[in-house]
Amino acid sequence: MDKDAFVDYEYPDLDPPPSKMEMEVIPPCDPTADDRLYHICITAISLVIMLILAILARRTKANNRQKGLPGLLSPVNFLDHTQHKGLAVAVFGVLLCKLWGLVISPNPLPFTADPENKQNWVILGVFFYPALYYPLLACGTLHNKVGYVLGSLLSWTHFVVLVWQKIDCPKTTLIHKHYSLFSSLPQIACLAFLSFQYPLLLFKGLKGTEKHNVAEDLSSSYYKEYVKKILKKKPNQISTSSTETPKLPQRIMDAVKSYIYRPEEAFRFPLKLAISGVVSFITLYQVGLLLISGVVPTLQMARLGVDEDIANVLAGFRIMLSPDKQEVVRIVVYYMWCVEVCYISAMTLSGLVNLAMLMRSMVLHRSNLKGLYRGDIYNVYNCQRSIRASRPALVCWMGYTSFTAAHICIGMMVQTMVFFLCLLITVFLIIIPVLHRQNLILFQILWSMWPFWLMILLVVLIQHITARFCFIKKTAGTRDLNNRGNLFLLTYLLFPVNVLIGVLLAVWRMIITALFNIVHMGRLDISLLNRNVEAFDPAYRCYAHYLKIEVSQSHPVMKAFCGMLLQSVDQETDAAAQRTRDAEEGIQLVQQEKKLCKVSSAKRARRHWHLLYTLVNNPSLVGTRKHFQRQAAESFVNGSLSRSAKEGSKKEAATKEV
Amino acid sequence: MDKDAFVDYEYPDLDPPPSKMEMEVIPPCDPTADDRLYHICITAISLVIMLILAILARRTKANNRQKGLPGLLSPVNFLDHTQHKGLAVAVFGVLLCKLWGLVISPNPLPFTADPENKQNWVILGVFFYPALYYPLLACGTLHNKVGYVLGSLLSWTHFVVLVWQKIDCPKTTLIHKHYSLFSSLPQIACLAFLSFQYPLLLFKGLKGTEKHNVAEDLSSSYYKEYVKKILKKKPNQISTSSTETPKLPQRIMDAVKSYIYRPEEAFRFPLKLAISGVVSFITLYQVGLLLISGVVPTLQMARLGVDEDIANVLAGFRIMLSPDKQEVVRIVVYYMWCVEVCYISAMTLSGLVNLAMLMRSMVLHRSNLKGLYRGDIYNVYNCQRSIRASRPALVCWMGYTSFTAAHICIGMMVQTMVFFLCLLITVFLIIIPVLHRQNLILFQILWSMWPFWLMILLVVLIQHITARFCFIKKTAGTRDLNNRGNLFLLTYLLFPVNVLIGVLLAVWRMIITALFNIVHMGRLDISLLNRNVEAFDPAYRCYAHYLKIEVSQSHPVMKAFCGMLLQSVDQETDAAAQRTRDAEEGIQLVQQEKKLCKVSSAKRARRHWHLLYTLVNNPSLVGTRKHFQRQAAESFVNGSLSRSAKEGSKKEAATKEV
Repeated sequence: MDKDAFVDYEYPDLDPPPSKMEMEVIPPCDPTADDRLYHICITAISLVIMLILAILARRTKANNRQKGLPGLLSPVNFLDHTQHKGLAVAVFGVLLCKLWGLVISPNPLPFTADPENKQNWVILGVFFYPALYYPLLACGTLHNKVGYVLGSLLSWTHFVVLVWQKIDCPKTTLIHKHYSLFSSLPQIACLAFLSFQYPLLLFKGLKGTEKHNVAEDLSSSYYKEYVKKILKKKPNQISTSSTETPKLPQRIMDAVKSYIYRPEEAFRFPLKLAISGVVSFITLYQVGLLLISGVVPTLQMARLGVDEDIANVLAGFRIMLSPDKQEVVRIVVYYMWCVEVCYISAMTLSGLVNLAMLMRSMVLHRSNLKGLYRGDIYNVYNCQRSIRASRPALVCWMGYTSFTAAHICIGMMVQTMVFFLCLLITVFLIIIPVLHRQNLILFQILWSMWPFWLMILLVVLIQHITARFCFIKKTAGTRDLNNRGNLFLLTYLLFPVNVLIGVLLAVWRMIITALFNIVHMGRLDISLLNRNVEAFDPAYRCYAHYLKIEVSQSHPVMKAFCGMLLQSVDQETDAAAQRTRDAEEGIQLVQQEKKLCKVSSAKRARRHWHLLYTLVNNPSLVGTRKHFQRQAAESFVNGSLSRSAKEGSKKEAATKEV
Repeated sequence: MDKDAFVDYEYPDLDPPPSKMEMEVIPPCDPTADDRLYHICITAISLVIMLILAILARRTKANNRQKGLPGLLSPVNFLDHTQHKGLAVAVFGVLLCKLWGLVISPNPLPFTADPENKQNWVILGVFFYPALYYPLLACGTLHNKVGYVLGSLLSWTHFVVLVWQKIDCPKTTLIHKHYSLFSSLPQIACLAFLSFQYPLLLFKGLKGTEKHNVAEDLSSSYYKEYVKKILKKKPNQISTSSTETPKLPQRIMDAVKSYIYRPEEAFRFPLKLAISGVVSFITLYQVGLLLISGVVPTLQMARLGVDEDIANVLAGFRIMLSPDKQEVVRIVVYYMWCVEVCYISAMTLSGLVNLAMLMRSMVLHRSNLKGLYRGDIYNVYNCQRSIRASRPALVCWMGYTSFTAAHICIGMMVQTMVFFLCLLITVFLIIIPVLHRQNLILFQILWSMWPFWLMILLVVLIQHITARFCFIKKTAGTRDLNNRGNLFLLTYLLFPVNVLIGVLLAVWRMIITALFNIVHMGRLDISLLNRNVEAFDPAYRCYAHYLKIEVSQSHPVMKAFCGMLLQSVDQETDAAAQRTRDAEEGIQLVQQEKKLCKVSSAKRARRHWHLLYTLVNNPSLVGTRKHFQRQAAESFVNGSLSRSAKEGSKKEAATKEV
C-alpha cells in the first residue's frame, strides 16, 4: 500500500486523482505591462510627483499659512466632519485591496522572482504600499491646479495599467482562474473613482467654484447648521426608557427599523467612520470571494469526478447505499451537491448578516456620537468616563479602521464555518430524511420521547395557567400573590420536573449565546461580554476609546464656536482696515468709534447668551472650556487672535459671576 | 475482516478486548433490605404519617388559626427569611440526589424488574419522589411534639435503610464499582441531618424553648433588627461609581474580595436562595463524581491494557514511535497517562471554577437584593422595571432553584470538555515538546515568524510611545492632541499593519469571549449577552423575574411593618381586656381612658414618624403602600384588625397632608 493509495482510500470523495478530471490548464501569462517594471516606474513617478508637490507647497506657503509643506505631510484630516471624503476613502480602499493581495498571493511584491521568504516581502509590502499610494492623497491637499493635474495623471496611470493587466491576463492559477480578476474589482473601482474625481476637481478649480466646495474645516456651514438644529428642537429623546411597553408588532417594526440606516441632515459621519464603513464593505467582498472561490470549485470538481469506483470505496467502509453502482454514484453526487448548496448558503447568509450588522453599526455610531455630543456619557458607556485624549485612547483611535476590517474578516470566516455546520446538520438530519421519508433517526428519537415532551409541556402549561389564574390576584389595579400555601406546595412538587426543564433552558441558553456572539463577532461597537466586564472585550474597548477621541476632538458645537471666533476676528480686522481707510479719507473718527463700541457691546451680549445656551445644551463641553480656549488660541487661530482670546476669558469670568 | 476486528483496528487504545484485562467481576448483589419492599413499606408508612398529621392538624386548628390543615399542605414558606432553613434544605437535597439516581440508573423505580420503558418510569419517579419525601417536611410544620416524634422515626427509617443498603452492597455494576456508594453520600448526609434535627426539635419542644426558636415569620426580631440597621447608618454606598480609579493592587484585591462571601449580620438569605445554594453544591458534587467515575476508570483500564500489539497497530497507521516495541508501549502508556492527567485537571478546574462562581453568585445575590430593597432598580436591572408579581415572574420564581441546578450541571460538563481540550493542546503542543526537546512544531512555526512578531511589536510600541510623548500634550492639568499632522500621517501609514494587529485582536476577542461565557455558564445571576439584549438570555431573565417576586413579596421592611402592626393590635386587645377587667373590679374608668388616649396619640405620632422615615429610605415601598394595607388586612391579620386598618388609611391621608 503506497502513500497515494492510502490517501485515495481515506478521502475518496474530496480529493480524486487529477487524471480523471478535465482540468482546464491555465498557461502562465505575462501581461504586456510587466508588473515588476510597472512598480519600479510608478515608484519613480510618485517620487517625482512628491518632489514637484513639495516645491509647489513651498511657493504656496507665502500665500497661505494653512497649507504648504506641513499640509502636504498630512493630506487627510481624520478629525474633519465636513471634508469631501471621496479621495481618502478611495485611497484606503486601494490600500486594503493591495494588502489583501499581499497576504493571499504567493509572490507579494513583484520586485523579486523567488517567493521563498514570502514573509519578509509581506513586511516590506505592508510599508511600501501606503508610501506608493501616498501621492494620490497628497495631490489633492494643496487645492492647486497643478496638484489636480498631477493627481489625474497618476490615478489614470494606476487605473489604466491595472485594467490593462487584467485584460491581458484575466485568468491566473491563484486559487481559482477568475479569482484574481474579481479580487481586483474593488481596487479598479476605487482607482476609477480617483481618475474621475481629480479631473472634476481640476475642472471646478478652473471654473473657480472649487474653493467654495473644498472649504476649510472651521468655516464650513455644517457646524453652524448643526448648532442651529440643536438650539431649535428640544431633546425629547431622553424619555426612551419609559416603563410602558409598546405592542409586539410595533416593537418588531422598531427593531427592524433600527437596522436600517437613513441619513439625517443634521449629522455627518466623521471621516474615520466613513472610511471604516467602506473598508468593511470591501473586506466583506474580499472574504466572501475568497470563501467562495477557494472551496466551491474544489467541491464541484470532486462532484464531477465521482464515478463507479466510489461504490467499492464505500463498501470498504461497510456503507451500502444501493446494490446498483450507478444508483450509488447518483446518491453520492446528490449528497455532494447538497453539501455545496449548504456551503454557498452559509457564505451568503454570513455576508448578509454582516451587511445588516454594518448598517446597524452605522445607526449605532450615529446615536452614540449624538449621545456623547449631548453629554449622555452614562447611556453610551454604562459608566461615568472622562471624555478626553489619553494614550490608550489615541492608540485605539489610530487603529480603529484597521481593526474593523480585521474583525469583519475573522467574523465572516467563523460565521461561514458555523452556519455551514448548522446547515449541514439541518439538511442531513431533517430536510433530506423528510423529503425521502427514510433515515428519520432524529424524528424517531424525538418521537420515542413523546411522553417526556408531553410531561414537560404539561408542567410548563400548568405552571403558567395556575400562575395566571390561581396565584395572582388583581385588586385595585395592583397585582399580588394569592393562595400562597398552594404556590409553595406546587413549587416543591414540581422541583424535579423543573430541573429537567432547566436542562433544556441551559442548552437553549448555550445556543442563543453562541449564536449571538458569532453573529456579532464582526462588530466593534458592542461588547460581547456581560455589562460589568464590557471593557475586557478588546474590540469594544477600542471602540469606546475611539469615540472618546472623536468626541473630544471634533465636537461639532466646539468647531462651530471656533468658526464663529475666527469669523469675528476677520470682521474686526476688516472693520479696523475700514477705519484706517476712513481716517485717511477724512471722515469723522468719533462717530465711527461710537458705532463700533455699540456694535461690539451688542455682539458681546449676544455671544454671552450663545455661550450660556450652548453650554446648557452641551454639558460635555463644560469640562474642557478653559482648555479649549487655549487650544483655539494656539492651533486654529493665528497670533492676531490672542487679544480676542483674552476677551474670551474675561467673558468667562463674567459668565461665572452671572 | 469481521466487525470486531474492524473496531479493534480503529480504536485500539480506547476499547481493548476485555479478555486482556484483569477486570474485577462484581457479583449481582441483593441487599437484605430489598429496595422494592422498602419502597412499598415506606410509601405506606408515609401515607399513615400524613393521615395522623392531618388528624392532629384538625385538632390543633381550634387552638391556633395559623397552623392546621392548610399549614400542613404548605410546609415550606419559601418567602420567609427567618425560618430555620435546615429541614427544607435537607429535603431538597435528598430529592435532588434521588432525581440524579433516577436519570443515571437503568432501573429508575424499584417497583418493576424490567428497565424496558425506562422513560415512563422516570416520569413516574419525577412525581413520586417529591410525594414520598413530603412527610419529612410536613412533620415539622405543626410545631407539635407528636409531629417531631413521627419526623424522627421517618427520617431514621430512611437513613438506616439507606446506610444498611450501602453497607450490604457497596459495589455495583453501575458506571464504576463505587459510583453508587459515593453518589449516595449527599443523600446520606441530608438524611443524617434530618435524623438529628427532628430529635433536637423534639427535645427543644419538651424543654419549652422551641416555640421561641421556631417563631412565626412576622413576629421574628430579624425584620426589626434589619430596619434598625437601615435607620442607623446612612447609605454611603451610592457613590461607588466615582470617576477616580484606585490603583492596580487595590483593584485586584477588590476583585478577589468580591469572590469571597462573608456573612453580614443585617442580612439573611431568602430560603429559596439558600436551597439553591445547597442544591448547586450537591449538583457540583454529583456531576464531578459522574465525570470522574465515568471516564477515568476506562482510561486507566485502557492504559493498563496497552501491550506490544500497539506497535503493530500504529505501524498500520504509518506512525513509528520507536523501533523497539517495548519503547513504543512505554511511550503510548506515558501519553495516555498525560491524557488522564489532563482530564482530571480539567474536571478539577471546572469544579473549582464553579465553586468560585457559586461564592460570587452569593455575593451578587446579596448586593442585588439589598439594592432592590433600597429601590435601586436601575443599577440591578440596567433599566426601569416595575417590581411586582406577574405571571412570567411567578413561573420563573417557581423554577429558579431547579434551573440553578440544571445550569450548573450543563455548565460543568461543557467546561470540563473545553478545559480538557485546551489542556490537551497545551500539554501535547507545548509542555511535552519542551520537556523532551523534540517535535517543537508550534515553537518552530512561531520562531520562523519572528520578523512578523518583531514588526507587530515594534509598531505597537511606536504607536504607544508616539501617542504618549509626541501626540498628547499636557497643559494646565488637561490633555489635548498635539502634532495633528504627524498623527494623521502615522495613522495612514500604519493602516495595513494595524489590520494585521486587528486579526490578532479578533482572535483574542474570540478566545476571551468564549472563555468568559463558558466559565460563567452555570451562573443565572449574570447575562451572557450584551447589555442591550440581556433579557434574551433565558437564565438571566429567570433570575431577574425571581428577584422581582422575592423583593416584592418579602421585603424585610414591609415584613417588619406588618409585624409592628400585628403587635400593636395584640397590645390594644390586651389593653381592652385589661380595661374590662378593671371595670369589673370597680376602678375609675375615666382616668383609665384618658391615659389610653394619651398613649395611643403618642404611639400614633411615633408611627407616623416611623412610616415617613421608612418610606424615605425605601422608595420601592411607596408604590405598593395602599395595596399593602389591604393585603395586611386580608391575609396576615384576622378580622379584628379591620378597625386598625381603617385607622391606618386615615394615618396615610394625614401623612399626605403633611
